[in-house]
Amino acid sequence: MYIDKQGLAGLEKRRRAALVNSLSGFKSANLVGTASADGESNLAIVSSVFHLGADPALMGFISRPPSVDRHTLENIEALGEYTLNHVHADIVHAAHQTSARYPREVSEFAATGLTPLAAQTLRAPYVAESRVRLGLTLCEMKPVEVNNTVMVIGEIVEIHVPDTAVGEDGFIDLETLGTVAISGLDSYHRTEKVSRLSYAKPDRPPREIS
Amino acid sequence: MYIDKQGLAGLEKRRRAALVNSLSGFKSANLVGTASADGESNLAIVSSVFHLGADPALMGFISRPPSVDRHTLENIEALGEYTLNHVHADIVHAAHQTSARYPREVSEFAATGLTPLAAQTLRAPYVAESRVRLGLTLCEMKPVEVNNTVMVIGEIVEIHVPDTAVGEDGFIDLETLGTVAISGLDSYHRTEKVSRLSYAKPDRPPREIS
Repeated sequence: MYIDKQGLAGLEKRRRAALVNSLSGFKSANLVGTASADGESNLAIVSSVFHLGADPALMGFISRPPSVDRHTLENIEALGEYTLNHVHADIVHAAHQTSARYPREVSEFAATGLTPLAAQTLRAPYVAESRVRLGLTLCEMKPVEVNNTVMVIGEIVEIHVPDTAVGEDGFIDLETLGTVAISGLDSYHRTEKVSRLSYAKPDRPPREIS
Repeated sequence: MYIDKQGLAGLEKRRRAALVNSLSGFKSANLVGTASADGESNLAIVSSVFHLGADPALMGFISRPPSVDRHTLENIEALGEYTLNHVHADIVHAAHQTSARYPREVSEFAATGLTPLAAQTLRAPYVAESRVRLGLTLCEMKPVEVNNTVMVIGEIVEIHVPDTAVGEDGFIDLETLGTVAISGLDSYHRTEKVSRLSYAKPDRPPREIS
């Protein structure tokens, strides 16, 4: 199957959205926890969280602009902080359900049965059920003018992760934690390890790390 | 395990890199194919490709700045185009090996045994072994000043994907194609479907889509 730019433009809108959302490959599955200045909590699933740098520890995610009633983005702007919480296989239904358009006064925690958990130094709530929980302070909301989205950049200031999943070398075994990956708009996947490979050097092939 | 900002800063550099690279969750696995104005080809694995929008069809990825001898970024700037090629389980070793620091005159295609394939309308080469191949034209190289990286934004102008993997609704079954996900710096994973869920509405729970 070959589709060019004209072919893409000619696809029905929902079909194009499903297709193009499948093209980047597997995506991370995180719940963004926020609170308003009044203390109302909000929770939203995002599939666009990406690693931006390790020192300082920075992460980005993409959001539509706040103009279209985005409670998450408004809360991040108001308090300058948020949490990211990995979705694992047991909470996939509840996590997906946070994407429904609830009215502002409804907390997605209450609506989906997920449990808010206070952070150490932040007012934004964690998801108690998540096994990897990150607290972040906002660095920058960078406008992406080409399609009117926003790249939210945050610095990681708190990390909660089960001891048993962290290797001597810092690697976290997300597979044993049940963290899922997303494909397309609505598909959730566990993982099964193929290989862990040594740092690549020009003069030798990579070897398996156990 | 709880780590705060000071704890992170105190970690040995490689350990911090491995830890922080694990925190965003599973990442996409793509090979970026480029060519220089002289026709020299280049291939590099990236784990930071993310969906930016479906109409127009836009994708982003994060790169270190071109100042540190980045052949990929220089080529994208020179020709204004590149390809993205999904990594599947059978080419994980070769794909990983493209991250070795080969001299400029060495093509990672020749060095790793992957096969260049001409695109329809672009000079940047595809990876013949990949089952999902995208051709993109450069929209913008957006500097991310906070850590001196670059967000490369491109528009998808060519799509190659096996017919059999594309559903009526546009969804691509990446799992049957063997597309892998990455965790941390060096771990590659197949996937196993947990759920595909219906569009979320406030007044009802999500149901499984088969």
